[in-house]
Amino acid sequence: VIDINADLGESFGAWTMGADEALLDQVTSANIACGFHAGDPRTMDAAVAMAARRGVTIGAHVSYPDLVGFGRRSMKVSPAELITDVLYQIGALEAFCRRHGTQIRYVKAHGALYNDMADDKQMAAALGQAITSYGGGLAVLMMGGSPAADALRDQGVRVVREGFADRGYTAAGRLVPRRQPGALLTDPAEAAERGWRIATGAAIAADDGTELVLGADSLCVHGDTPGAVELARELRALLTAREVEVAPFA
Amino acid sequence: VIDINADLGESFGAWTMGADEALLDQVTSANIACGFHAGDPRTMDAAVAMAARRGVTIGAHVSYPDLVGFGRRSMKVSPAELITDVLYQIGALEAFCRRHGTQIRYVKAHGALYNDMADDKQMAAALGQAITSYGGGLAVLMMGGSPAADALRDQGVRVVREGFADRGYTAAGRLVPRRQPGALLTDPAEAAERGWRIATGAAIAADDGTELVLGADSLCVHGDTPGAVELARELRALLTAREVEVAPFA
Amino acid sequence: VIDINADLGESFGAWTMGADEALLDQVTSANIACGFHAGDPRTMDAAVAMAARRGVTIGAHVSYPDLVGFGRRSMKVSPAELITDVLYQIGALEAFCRRHGTQIRYVKAHGALYNDMADDKQMAAALGQAITSYGGGLAVLMMGGSPAADALRDQGVRVVREGFADRGYTAAGRLVPRRQPGALLTDPAEAAERGWRIATGAAIAADDGTELVLGADSLCVHGDTPGAVELARELRALLTAREVEVAPFA
Amino acid sequence: VIDINADLGESFGAWTMGADEALLDQVTSANIACGFHAGDPRTMDAAVAMAARRGVTIGAHVSYPDLVGFGRRSMKVSPAELITDVLYQIGALEAFCRRHGTQIRYVKAHGALYNDMADDKQMAAALGQAITSYGGGLAVLMMGGSPAADALRDQGVRVVREGFADRGYTAAGRLVPRRQPGALLTDPAEAAERGWRIATGAAIAADDGTELVLGADSLCVHGDTPGAVELARELRALLTAREVEVAPFA
Repeated sequence: VIDINADLGESFGAWTMGADEALLDQVTSANIACGFHAGDPRTMDAAVAMAARRGVTIGAHVSYPDLVGFGRRSMKVSPAELITDVLYQIGALEAFCRRHGTQIRYVKAHGALYNDMADDKQMAAALGQAITSYGGGLAVLMMGGSPAADALRDQGVRVVREGFADRGYTAAGRLVPRRQPGALLTDPAEAAERGWRIATGAAIAADDGTELVLGADSLCVHGDTPGAVELARELRALLTAREVEVAPFA
Repeated sequence: VIDINADLGESFGAWTMGADEALLDQVTSANIACGFHAGDPRTMDAAVAMAARRGVTIGAHVSYPDLVGFGRRSMKVSPAELITDVLYQIGALEAFCRRHGTQIRYVKAHGALYNDMADDKQMAAALGQAITSYGGGLAVLMMGGSPAADALRDQGVRVVREGFADRGYTAAGRLVPRRQPGALLTDPAEAAERGWRIATGAAIAADDGTELVLGADSLCVHGDTPGAVELARELRALLTAREVEVAPFA
Repeated sequence: VIDINADLGESFGAWTMGADEALLDQVTSANIACGFHAGDPRTMDAAVAMAARRGVTIGAHVSYPDLVGFGRRSMKVSPAELITDVLYQIGALEAFCRRHGTQIRYVKAHGALYNDMADDKQMAAALGQAITSYGGGLAVLMMGGSPAADALRDQGVRVVREGFADRGYTAAGRLVPRRQPGALLTDPAEAAERGWRIATGAAIAADDGTELVLGADSLCVHGDTPGAVELARELRALLTAREVEVAPFA
Repeated sequence: VIDINADLGESFGAWTMGADEALLDQVTSANIACGFHAGDPRTMDAAVAMAARRGVTIGAHVSYPDLVGFGRRSMKVSPAELITDVLYQIGALEAFCRRHGTQIRYVKAHGALYNDMADDKQMAAALGQAITSYGGGLAVLMMGGSPAADALRDQGVRVVREGFADRGYTAAGRLVPRRQPGALLTDPAEAAERGWRIATGAAIAADDGTELVLGADSLCVHGDTPGAVELARELRALLTAREVEVAPFA
């Protein structure tokens, strides 16, 4: 059994980004932006409504407060600031979930926060504090083998391990940075094959050619990858054809 | 029995406004800013924590999105925008309430939105839709005798009528605009007396001298009025001395 | 001789809008967003650089401070606020002009501010005050026959009258509101013909069929109209073919 | 001869900070916030007007885009982003200078940007590029003995070396971080004495007791230090009494 997740609701005001509706037909979990890197109240409401209609699980895609930088720039926020920034975003998204008869089931950090947190146990602990103080048993979707994952598990937070069908990996199991060659797999067939390998525990080739086995509960498909919808469709078709069940982790 | 409410949590980042802690010792309901006219996640968290500790009832003080204008400038937002803007703000505040073991009990519109809504049944209906779709039986704190109040009651929303101890009234029962003479009562004794009159259904003098009887369930004390804390203290002392019970409406 | 202008630089952060580069090959004046409804420093810099390279005249496209609403919502800003908001935006844009060896030549109000100002002599006077206090002889691009145009001319500000090739007009010479039928002319040939008529002082048909003669010094082509680039190309070709010179007004 | 500078115009919207008017009577240079960490168009206009009236030299106090964090949090902006962010802020402030018959003479980085830049030649070069592309011969006010100062001088930018009368120094000539003991000198007499020593090239005691000689062209007085105005007054009086001329560096 494997989950497929994608970043959604990343439009803002008059600006649109991503093919939300088409992607929602393929994924089982939706990471919805909460206004700090993307997403305004109307965008969030629309994304939640579309996800709820399809029974897609909803997660809060929380970010540093950096709209103009799309949350892709590291910021030195304090743990106390992270706790309250995360709570604000979760709460805001939950209101739209209540409107559409559903609820938030997990949290995923976005962009620079996602990367910064992986190795920072203090920030991970702050995220964990936000989540446990909010209640409702929210999981965290993140890279599985990181110090952050351990810090969260120590707080009793469920960690859902994420694999990337459309991204290159280093031998250490980290993503190849976006500006390096091999960062993105744009061939849908190749990405689908990689997704299937990750989902079933088969080894993949890291960027230096070494074999890498990644455990994953959810496969991420980037909405901003060229051909994201086709990739998601192909991935889902391949998994189904090979009898891997695609279902939400929550 | 009468409630006393005040606007709180109106600091932002490095800027402080109002004497939150001291006011919270006097009021029974706290209208907490949600980030659209004032309030950032840390400010909101602190205000909720202080209110929860004292058992003060918490309301979402929702606004037009206008930080630089402090929500005091009218904006032509559509009903659909108002619904989602209100939901976003309520939800964000609720997250801090969950952290501190309490919950939002009511909504109050701030500044220009408060004034614009009083006569606009369509906007009031949008507010009502936000509230009913959110659930939890939130009340609305507002001027009692307005078309908006009727529109909200039609939707089954509880309207809590607000009176102002420290503001002048026109003969029509509306507030004297802030820039006109007689808009603010700065003498605490005078304001306390007026508060008591409103609370007990006794007539007050409008700005043209005519007698005016206002029904009210809650008395508002403005945190930004000079001497707000002293005024609140005096009001509460007078009410108690004359055996009017001061207690939250919710 | 006629000028052609378009709104440019309306991307923001990770979000793109409009085909700036292609439009700049067709227009003689560029209304560049200054960060209040669209445009961030990098977007502005890029737009100015592209315009300067082509010798396209640069204007500041100033707006209410409403990013999420794209400046399309009326706001009750005071004249004092309008003066300083306009100065801030002009100055910010000018810095990029200095970097690229050019300068701002005019100001155009955007969206709701454009519409609100047409009939509001007080707001027009505030705009005029911003412009005259800034110096440098900036013109204002606006609807010609409005009270605002008179107010600006009274202050010694040059008014450049704008006509719309791709918009419907009422018999009063105002634009048909965007949500009404007939608001947009999407057929490039039809819009080009209308543009030529306006440019040469020939009558056009208003939405009720009456004949309307508009004086114009500049024709606006909307970047967000479907097929904007094609429209601009067709308009320019037609004007050139019929020996109307297309050249900047400044 | 020594200059005295202070951070000014750090209010925002309804929130006030600092005693601008009183400080402007004591300083010879004003670092005015430009909207990224503080300052809105009306605040900027008022600060420029007050400075111009007194003949106080005006500098642009540029920051990372972080209003809620008051520019005190490091952000990983790219050099290209820094160039355009700085240009935007300088230009915006210049518009108000034009209105009040004056001009910007220098740039000072604020908060985290000030600190981050000191050791980062790449960021310093980006600042230098913004300044040289803007033209007008703007100086940079900064810590004198830093790698950044060298990078700027290499670009032909004038560096004005700043000393802090009211801050503790480490033996390496850096400021004691704000949260450590000894970071702030709050006794006006002590700070004035230190200011005089720095201004005249006399040694001061670092936080570990070692002697430290700092060269400085301008002394900074923090507006947010308790008793800032008194400190500035005392500093100026002491300098004058001991026949050090207080005059703008520009």
